[in-house]
Amino acid sequence: MTRLFNDPAAFADEALEGFTAAHRRWVRPVTGGVVRATATPAGQVAVVIGGGSGHYPAFSGLVGRGLAHGAAVGNVFASPSARQIHSVATAAHGGGGVLLMYGNYAGDVLHFGQAAERLAADGIETRTFAVADDISSAGPDESAKRRGIAGDLPVFKAAAAAAEQGLPLEEVLRVAERAGVRTRSFGIAFSGCTLPGADHPLFTVPEARMAVGLGIHGEPGIGEEALPTADEAALLLVETLLKELPDDVADPAGRRAAVILNGLGSVKYEELFVVYRKVAALLGDAGVEIVDPEVGELVTSFDMAGISLTLTWLDDRLEELWRAPADTPAYRKGALGDPEPDQDRAAATAGQDTAAAQDTAVSDAAASGTTAVPVASDASRRAAGTVLAALDAVARVVDAHAGELGRIDAVAGDGDHGIGMRRGSSAAHRAAHDAHRVGAGAGTVLTRAADDWADKAGGTSGALWGTILRSLGTALGDRDAPDAARVAEGVTEASAAVRRLGGAEVGDKTMVDVLVPFADALAAATAEGLPLAEAWDRAATTATAAAAGTADLLPRRGRARPHAEKSLGTPDAGAHSLALITRAVHGALLDHH
Amino acid sequence: MTRLFNDPAAFADEALEGFTAAHRRWVRPVTGGVVRATATPAGQVAVVIGGGSGHYPAFSGLVGRGLAHGAAVGNVFASPSARQIHSVATAAHGGGGVLLMYGNYAGDVLHFGQAAERLAADGIETRTFAVADDISSAGPDESAKRRGIAGDLPVFKAAAAAAEQGLPLEEVLRVAERAGVRTRSFGIAFSGCTLPGADHPLFTVPEARMAVGLGIHGEPGIGEEALPTADEAALLLVETLLKELPDDVADPAGRRAAVILNGLGSVKYEELFVVYRKVAALLGDAGVEIVDPEVGELVTSFDMAGISLTLTWLDDRLEELWRAPADTPAYRKGALGDPEPDQDRAAATAGQDTAAAQDTAVSDAAASGTTAVPVASDASRRAAGTVLAALDAVARVVDAHAGELGRIDAVAGDGDHGIGMRRGSSAAHRAAHDAHRVGAGAGTVLTRAADDWADKAGGTSGALWGTILRSLGTALGDRDAPDAARVAEGVTEASAAVRRLGGAEVGDKTMVDVLVPFADALAAATAEGLPLAEAWDRAATTATAAAAGTADLLPRRGRARPHAEKSLGTPDAGAHSLALITRAVHGALLDHH
Repeated sequence: MTRLFNDPAAFADEALEGFTAAHRRWVRPVTGGVVRATATPAGQVAVVIGGGSGHYPAFSGLVGRGLAHGAAVGNVFASPSARQIHSVATAAHGGGGVLLMYGNYAGDVLHFGQAAERLAADGIETRTFAVADDISSAGPDESAKRRGIAGDLPVFKAAAAAAEQGLPLEEVLRVAERAGVRTRSFGIAFSGCTLPGADHPLFTVPEARMAVGLGIHGEPGIGEEALPTADEAALLLVETLLKELPDDVADPAGRRAAVILNGLGSVKYEELFVVYRKVAALLGDAGVEIVDPEVGELVTSFDMAGISLTLTWLDDRLEELWRAPADTPAYRKGALGDPEPDQDRAAATAGQDTAAAQDTAVSDAAASGTTAVPVASDASRRAAGTVLAALDAVARVVDAHAGELGRIDAVAGDGDHGIGMRRGSSAAHRAAHDAHRVGAGAGTVLTRAADDWADKAGGTSGALWGTILRSLGTALGDRDAPDAARVAEGVTEASAAVRRLGGAEVGDKTMVDVLVPFADALAAATAEGLPLAEAWDRAATTATAAAAGTADLLPRRGRARPHAEKSLGTPDAGAHSLALITRAVHGALLDHH
Repeated sequence: MTRLFNDPAAFADEALEGFTAAHRRWVRPVTGGVVRATATPAGQVAVVIGGGSGHYPAFSGLVGRGLAHGAAVGNVFASPSARQIHSVATAAHGGGGVLLMYGNYAGDVLHFGQAAERLAADGIETRTFAVADDISSAGPDESAKRRGIAGDLPVFKAAAAAAEQGLPLEEVLRVAERAGVRTRSFGIAFSGCTLPGADHPLFTVPEARMAVGLGIHGEPGIGEEALPTADEAALLLVETLLKELPDDVADPAGRRAAVILNGLGSVKYEELFVVYRKVAALLGDAGVEIVDPEVGELVTSFDMAGISLTLTWLDDRLEELWRAPADTPAYRKGALGDPEPDQDRAAATAGQDTAAAQDTAVSDAAASGTTAVPVASDASRRAAGTVLAALDAVARVVDAHAGELGRIDAVAGDGDHGIGMRRGSSAAHRAAHDAHRVGAGAGTVLTRAADDWADKAGGTSGALWGTILRSLGTALGDRDAPDAARVAEGVTEASAAVRRLGGAEVGDKTMVDVLVPFADALAAATAEGLPLAEAWDRAATTATAAAAGTADLLPRRGRARPHAEKSLGTPDAGAHSLALITRAVHGALLDHH
C-alpha cells in the first residue's frame, strides 16, 4: 500500500516536485508537467507524452534526449487536462510541430485531443497517437479500443528516435503508427494497489490466485486462475502473445523482437529475472531473436503486484530506432558509447562460461564430485572411510537437531543456524561420498567436503565449518594413515583459523568458546598417548561443558541486534552445534575402530 | 510477498540466469557470479563486489564500466562462499590486483576474507573492504561494527572510479576507506519481506507503525514509532544523519554531499519523490549542496516496505569519482556525453518555471482566478450572475449525489465518477466565482469554469464537462445578454463537441444518450418561443427519461471491463449525473428569473 504522503490530495504535485528536484540535469518543471532541461536542435519535432501519475517511470521519467521532449502529468491515475498538455507542448515545441502520445484511455484521448485542437489554433502543427498494446482489453477485431500499458515505451521511443533523426512530423507519426501496430502486451496480477490516503486496494485477488489480463489503473483483469510457478507464468505470457502476431509476421521464427518484461510495482527484480529466464528460453525455442530486452519497472501501477510482457516485432527501421541511445531520468541507453566486448578473456574462460550457463552460475556442486581426485595411499583411502562415516554422523546429528538449533539461534540471531548447518553438513557428506567413491584420500575427502559445506550453507557458520574441515583435511593429507597426533594437530590448526577469520576470542560466547578447549583437550589427551577415539571422547566432554558455559547472565559482546538481552540463559547456537557434532563424531570413530 | 518462483531452493540461481540473459551487453556469467562482458585495460585494479541475492540491483546489477568488474552472488540473503568469490575474482582479475568489497556482515567478512587468502596464495594481490554505513546498527564508538546498506553504492563507486583511472591497488583501497568513513545511512521500514517459498514475512510491523533503523535482511529495527507523514519521515532521516557528521565535517553548511534516497522494495517511486522533495529542502536549509542525487531502488530487500537515506560527504576528489560515468545493468551515468543545458528556452520560460516551482507544477488553479478578465458588457455581467448561480447548483447537486454516482459507476467502471465530478464541479464554481468577482461576463465565467473543471476532475468526465462549459461560454460570449436561443445554440454545440471528442453516439449508453435529446428538446422549445427557464424545464424532463433509458438489459458496447454484465439494469453514471445537473440548473434559472 501507499504509506508515504502528506495531504493525499497534494500527492501527485509533491511527487512531481520531488522528481524534478532529483533530476534537474534532465528535466525542468513547467506548468502541467516537465520538459527537457537539455537543448534540442531547432526545428525538431517535439514528442510530448503524458498520462496520470502513479505509473513512474511513465511518464515524467521518460523525458530526455532520445526519448520524449516533454511530459504532461495528471493527478493519480487521471489524465492531465488539455490546458496542462497545451502548456507542456508549448514549452517543448521547437518549431517542428508536436506529436502528442499517450495510452489509449477515454480521458487521455479526450484531453490530448482537445489540447491538439488548441495547439493547432495557436498555429502549432500537432498530431496525436494513442498506444493500444494491451491485447486483453479488446479482441483483435477491435484493436483500436485496446488500452495502452507497457507498450507505451517502445512506441514512444520509436517515434522519439525518429524525431531525433530530424524527420518531419508526418513521418514521425508514421513511425509511431508502425511501432504501434507491431507492439502487443499481456499481463497478470496478484494484488491491487492502494492509492495515497485510501484504506483499501483498488481490487483484490484471492490468496494463491492470479488475475489474467491486468490493467494499470486497478482494472481487475478478465479472468482468474491459480497462482502459477514462474515458468508457468512465462509460458502463459509468451504463448498468449505468440498467438496474436501482426499481420505481416506470419511466423515468429527468424523474427526479431524488442522484449519488455515489466514489473507493475511490488514484484521484485529477482522474480522478474526468474520469469525472464523462461521467457527468453521460450522465445528462443520459437525462433525469435530478442533485441535489447528490458526487465524492470517501466510502466507501473503503484505497488500493484503484477507483471506484463510486451513484444515489439521489429523490422530494420524499428530495430535501429529501438537501439538508438537515450538519456532520461529512468531510461538510459548507449552510455559511454558502444562497449567493446571482452573477446580475449571471454575466450579464455569459455569452458567456465559454458559450465556456468549449463549448471546455473552459482551452483557448482556437481563439479567437485566429478573432478578427478589426487592420488592417495591405500592407508589414506581407508582413513577416508572413517572420515566419511564421521561426516555422515555429523549430517545426521545436525538434521536431528536442526529445529532446536534454529530456535536457539532465533533468540539472539536470525534463526537460520539450523537451516544453514543442515544445508552445509548434507552437502559436505555428499561431496565426501563422491570423492571417496572415486578413490580420494582422507585429506581430499575433507577439503572437498569443506568447499561444499561453505558453498551450500552460506553465512558465518558455513564459512567457519568450511575452514574447520579444510584445516583438518590439509593436516591429514592423502599420503599417510592419519594418527591421533595428526588429527589433534589439524583440530588445533582449525581452532586457530577460526579465530583468525572470525575475529572472536574465548569469552565472546561464540563457537570459539567450545573449539579452543576442545582442541586443547584433544591435544593434551593425544600427547598422553591415548588412542584417537578415547582422546576424542575426553575432548568432546570438555566441549559439551564449554557449550553450556556460553549460556550465562552477561549480555553478549559485539551484537548489534535489538533483542540481544533476550539471549540471557541460552547457549550460543554455534557453540551448541559444535558440541553436538564432537559427540556424534566420537560415535563414528568408535564404530570404525 | 515473493510469488513468482519455481523451486524456492533454485530461486537465486534462476534469478542470476535470467539477469545475465537480459544483460549480455554488460555481463557474462562465471562460476559464482558475473564479470564484465566488456573489455578492461590490462593492469587495472579489479573491484569485485558481492553479497547475498535479494538486494538487486546490488550486487550483480552494479557490474560494468565505471563500476564493479565482477560480482559474487550468494544464495538469498546469504554470503557467497569463498570458492565463489575466488572464482569471480580470478575471472575479473586483469593483472592489477583485486579489491574485494562487500557489506559488513559476519558471513561476508569471513567468506571474502578466506577468498582473499586464496587469491593471495595464487599470487593475486588482494585487499578487502567492508562497507559499514548503517548508523543504527552500532554506535559511533563502534562504527566498525556497523552493517552495510545502501552506502554500498557510493563506496563501491568511488573505489571503482579510482580503479578506472588506473590507480594502483593501495590507492584504490585508500579511496574506498575515505568514501567509507564519509558515508552514513539511516532507514525506516513499514513491513518485512517474505522470501521465496516462505509463508510468513521475516518480520512484521503493526499497521500504522514504522520500524526505525532497518536492516536489509529482515532485521527488524531498533525502535518503533507511529507511521509518519512523508515530510516527517524526511525530517527524521535528515536530522538523524546531520547529528552524526564525519570527524572532518564540523558544520554541514557549505558542504557537498552525494545523496541517495533508497527504496527497499515496495515503497514506490512517487512516494520516494514526495519524501525526496522534503529531504532536498531540509538539506538545502542546512546549507548542504546536493550532488547527483539518486532516488530509487539501489540496495533492496525483496519487497520490504522501507526507505533509507544515505549521505556521502564529498571532497573534491570524492565528488569527481561520484560524478564519473558508469554503465551497468542498473546504474548508468554520463550517457551520451555531458548534456548541454537548454539555456535559451529556460530563460524564455523562466517566469513560467518560477510559477511552476512555487505553486507546484500541476496545480495552477490560482492562476485563473487572479488573471485579468476581458471587458464585458453590463448585460453579460448580469447574466454571469445567473451562470454563477447555476454552477453553484451544479456543485451542490453533485456533492449531494457523489456517493450514489460512485456506486453506479463502480458497477461497470472504476467507481471514481462521483469523486471526479465533485472535484470538477467545485473547482468550476470557485473559478466562476473568482472571474465573476473581477467583472467577467457570462462567456468568460463559463470558459474559466470549464478549464478548472477539466484540470481538477481529470478523466473522461472532466474533459467532457470542460468541453460542455467551454462550448456554452463561447456561444454566450461577453458582449450581449444571452437569450434562450443563444443558450440552446451553445448546448447544441456542446452536444456536437462531446460526440466529436468522445467518439460515442446515441445508443452507446453514455452521457451522449442524454445530451443529444436534451439539446434537441431545448432547441425545439426555444424555437417555439418559450422563455429559457420553461424551455429548460421541458428539456430536463427529456434528459431524465433518457438517462433512465441507459439502464436496459443489453450489455454495453465497447466496454472491455470484465464485469460488464453486472451493469444490466443500472444507468450509465455519466448519463445519470448529466440528468441530475440539468434538473438542478433549472432550479437556479427559476430563482434568477
